[in-house]
Amino acid sequence: MSAIRHALSTSREADFALWYQEVISEAEMAEESGVRGCMVIKPWGYGIWERIQKLMDARIKEAGVDNCYFPLFIPLSYFAKEAEHVEGFAKEMAVVTHHRLIGDGKGGLIPDPEAKLEEPLIVRPTSETVIGAAMARWVQSWRDLPLLTNQWANVVRWEMRTRMFLRTSEFLWQEGHTAHADREDAMAETLRALEMYRSFAEDELAMPVIAGEKPENERFPGAVATYSIEAMMQDGKALQAGTSHYLGTGFAEAAGIRYQDKEGQQALCHTTSWGVSTRLIGGVIMTHGDDDGLRVPPAIAPHQVVILPMLRDTDEDEALLAYCEELRRALAAQSALGEPIRVLLDKRPGKATQKRWAWVKKGVPLILEIGGRDAAGGQVSVIRRDRLWQENGKVNFAAQGREEFLGKAAAELEDIQKSLHAEATAKRDANIVRGIDSMAALETFFGEDKRYPGWIELGWAKPTGAELEEVVQKLKALKLTIRNTPMNAAPVSGSCIFTGKPAVERIYVARAY
Amino acid sequence: MSAIRHALSTSREADFALWYQEVISEAEMAEESGVRGCMVIKPWGYGIWERIQKLMDARIKEAGVDNCYFPLFIPLSYFAKEAEHVEGFAKEMAVVTHHRLIGDGKGGLIPDPEAKLEEPLIVRPTSETVIGAAMARWVQSWRDLPLLTNQWANVVRWEMRTRMFLRTSEFLWQEGHTAHADREDAMAETLRALEMYRSFAEDELAMPVIAGEKPENERFPGAVATYSIEAMMQDGKALQAGTSHYLGTGFAEAAGIRYQDKEGQQALCHTTSWGVSTRLIGGVIMTHGDDDGLRVPPAIAPHQVVILPMLRDTDEDEALLAYCEELRRALAAQSALGEPIRVLLDKRPGKATQKRWAWVKKGVPLILEIGGRDAAGGQVSVIRRDRLWQENGKVNFAAQGREEFLGKAAAELEDIQKSLHAEATAKRDANIVRGIDSMAALETFFGEDKRYPGWIELGWAKPTGAELEEVVQKLKALKLTIRNTPMNAAPVSGSCIFTGKPAVERIYVARAY
Repeated sequence: MSAIRHALSTSREADFALWYQEVISEAEMAEESGVRGCMVIKPWGYGIWERIQKLMDARIKEAGVDNCYFPLFIPLSYFAKEAEHVEGFAKEMAVVTHHRLIGDGKGGLIPDPEAKLEEPLIVRPTSETVIGAAMARWVQSWRDLPLLTNQWANVVRWEMRTRMFLRTSEFLWQEGHTAHADREDAMAETLRALEMYRSFAEDELAMPVIAGEKPENERFPGAVATYSIEAMMQDGKALQAGTSHYLGTGFAEAAGIRYQDKEGQQALCHTTSWGVSTRLIGGVIMTHGDDDGLRVPPAIAPHQVVILPMLRDTDEDEALLAYCEELRRALAAQSALGEPIRVLLDKRPGKATQKRWAWVKKGVPLILEIGGRDAAGGQVSVIRRDRLWQENGKVNFAAQGREEFLGKAAAELEDIQKSLHAEATAKRDANIVRGIDSMAALETFFGEDKRYPGWIELGWAKPTGAELEEVVQKLKALKLTIRNTPMNAAPVSGSCIFTGKPAVERIYVARAY
Repeated sequence: MSAIRHALSTSREADFALWYQEVISEAEMAEESGVRGCMVIKPWGYGIWERIQKLMDARIKEAGVDNCYFPLFIPLSYFAKEAEHVEGFAKEMAVVTHHRLIGDGKGGLIPDPEAKLEEPLIVRPTSETVIGAAMARWVQSWRDLPLLTNQWANVVRWEMRTRMFLRTSEFLWQEGHTAHADREDAMAETLRALEMYRSFAEDELAMPVIAGEKPENERFPGAVATYSIEAMMQDGKALQAGTSHYLGTGFAEAAGIRYQDKEGQQALCHTTSWGVSTRLIGGVIMTHGDDDGLRVPPAIAPHQVVILPMLRDTDEDEALLAYCEELRRALAAQSALGEPIRVLLDKRPGKATQKRWAWVKKGVPLILEIGGRDAAGGQVSVIRRDRLWQENGKVNFAAQGREEFLGKAAAELEDIQKSLHAEATAKRDANIVRGIDSMAALETFFGEDKRYPGWIELGWAKPTGAELEEVVQKLKALKLTIRNTPMNAAPVSGSCIFTGKPAVERIYVARAY
């Protein structure tokens, strides 16, 4: 029996959903705002988002995509143009109907009936329609194509059941929108964005994902094809962590995005859109968190190293602080993962052990505790967050010489990045089940009292229309969904467990967020 | 008579307002969106905003302020808590009343009457109330103070008359919100933010500003004191380019932001807020723009140098491009103004002269035109945007050896930054009029047919209440407003032209945006 006393009161094993909330609260990442479905993102959570933004934005710019900013509000009429799209989104959106408040005569305020908008405005749930209207103005000739735009923005989808970072009424994201001369070019862009997300998730978030095409029933409203990256959370559920859509010419037709081709003929553009959101932070928590809180991959950690001086309110504090400050400077002058090391010297008042556990829960990759004796002896005492405990249940401090530590700090951060990825990949791979060869076996598998059943990999016949709908309903009864068809997978053999027909491609079936 | 043929069709002299629109349009910075009062910020405009964000964010973080994100929506009840505040803002705000659309039975969509919100939500015009509610949760003890937060966000104020960047219904900004133990600490933060804005405007935007306190009638709704930076545009009007507010304990009382002091007593916090917005971009245009378009200060230019190869669709193009690419790399390896030089090699198809004028209108500080002969001879032909014309009306190309240019490129950019600032300061200073000693003289001065009368510097008695209101109305009749009382100004003598009482401080009076 382990003697470890974990920093959180709820373990992943005991109650994964409660554990998730506790990580967010104890790591001070976010909290309920008092505004229905909206959260307050606190400095540690927002700092991680800033890192994600910075790294993703560099990749977006590298691909030649220009950032723009489009209106928050979309006139109702724009929204009604693309029939399938509005069908998918019209249900739950925030509708602005008035532009002024007045007193209600009882000391309160009400929307001014005199200030009712002629046309209601929708708070953007996504910006295809309003960006499409701009593209129609901007694109004249084949010379204007491809038109590659992106925006970082807030969007609102009125959600009935919300969960911080995973599903909130307002969330932050980037949305790429591009217009192309033909299907081939648009599809190449769709897949480029997908690959950008895949490599971003793996390299920066240390989160293994499977990139693939969503089945027909899971397409973005109005899309011809939708692709996703899917990550496995530690409870075995899938998280759709990013999507990329080939929209065909439907949106271009609704918005009038036409160009004159080289032969002088008018033609419709083929458009794409692709996005990732603050949901990624939920994915990072559920991929890397443990029973002591979050573990942040160094690439996206706001601080990669925190130095904690063990201050005692004595005369020795001055020398200790000077030693720590010098250590901070030496670390900040080094680079890891291609950037200067981000290091914080935490001089705030408070007990050193309390501060240590606060940083453990926040998941800082390396914590240095420095006491007076360390300073005098040129030592540092290092906690590596991903190897927090010794087997005997004690905290795994590594006392090292200052020079020794400085010599390997960057390599250590890079190793943590790799280790987190390797650990998550091993967990994911151990929880993908193959060889289930009938609906009955599937039902048995998910019917068993398995808390974390993982994903099932199957070959299927790729049914469409009503036949697909039947499959979807069967799976729904088991709380299952089809996640995606992985890209570049090996061919399948055997027959489809849903239809009995020959299997034509691989899919993943799982419970999902 | 000058033989110069300017790139814009409207000069500043002919019609400043029209010229402003033309710069925005020709420099491809923004455009009307089709959504009332909202603009689309295009890549060049947004690129300048990204530069402003990056440089301002570094200053904000340097001051120990943490970025967070708070909800877009504010429940009506929050808003009603602070009486004076709501009085100032309640008039024109976007009100969300429904969370769903349904078909109207005629093929259209309407807000679903079944989905009416119990309490309307306001799209934030500013976030004092919702951040105050969070601060009330976060602050318990004196140890939690000061609490320093900031957010980068969009806000909405329903404006009747809009003008791109200067006044739009939706705009982008940062809003700092801080809570302190006492007046002294809060006032120090208010003035720190003011000084941050002053030095940012001068150093990064090359825009001279006067930092000072706004008169009582111009205070932020609910504030105890409001400070601003004021810049003079080239038409002599003032632009309030940033504000910082000391809010006293009023907002803390409304939101319940209390702390236990060192003696164990409960006390109200003193709060501040401060912000700058995309309006700064309007200020940059009207400070530095000329009759050929924008001139962007190098510190905030998305590209500081653009290389234009004079491609001819011949075999020589390859060597020319190789020469240009090598030049690009050599420039990008250098630093100017503390960062790597941002250089673009513009290889897009199109005529070189057309491309040149497009970049002139966008205001890129240095444009390099490279022809085949330049490449062969190791030369570059440089246009410095702030010295575009020769006296004879020809474009001011400077042919230089490649090495010579590379050796001074960084210094040249730094010199442009300084020159723009010096030029704007000289213009501003030449248009501040002193010595007007009576209301009659003021009326005469502004009554004359002066298109750009500039600012008047006066001593006044600092009247308050009804006496101030009388002054405000008198000035309003002349379309004038009191801009601010400059910080650290020399003492004044003489009497107040409004009240006849002894003058106690200096003010600026001007027409304003």
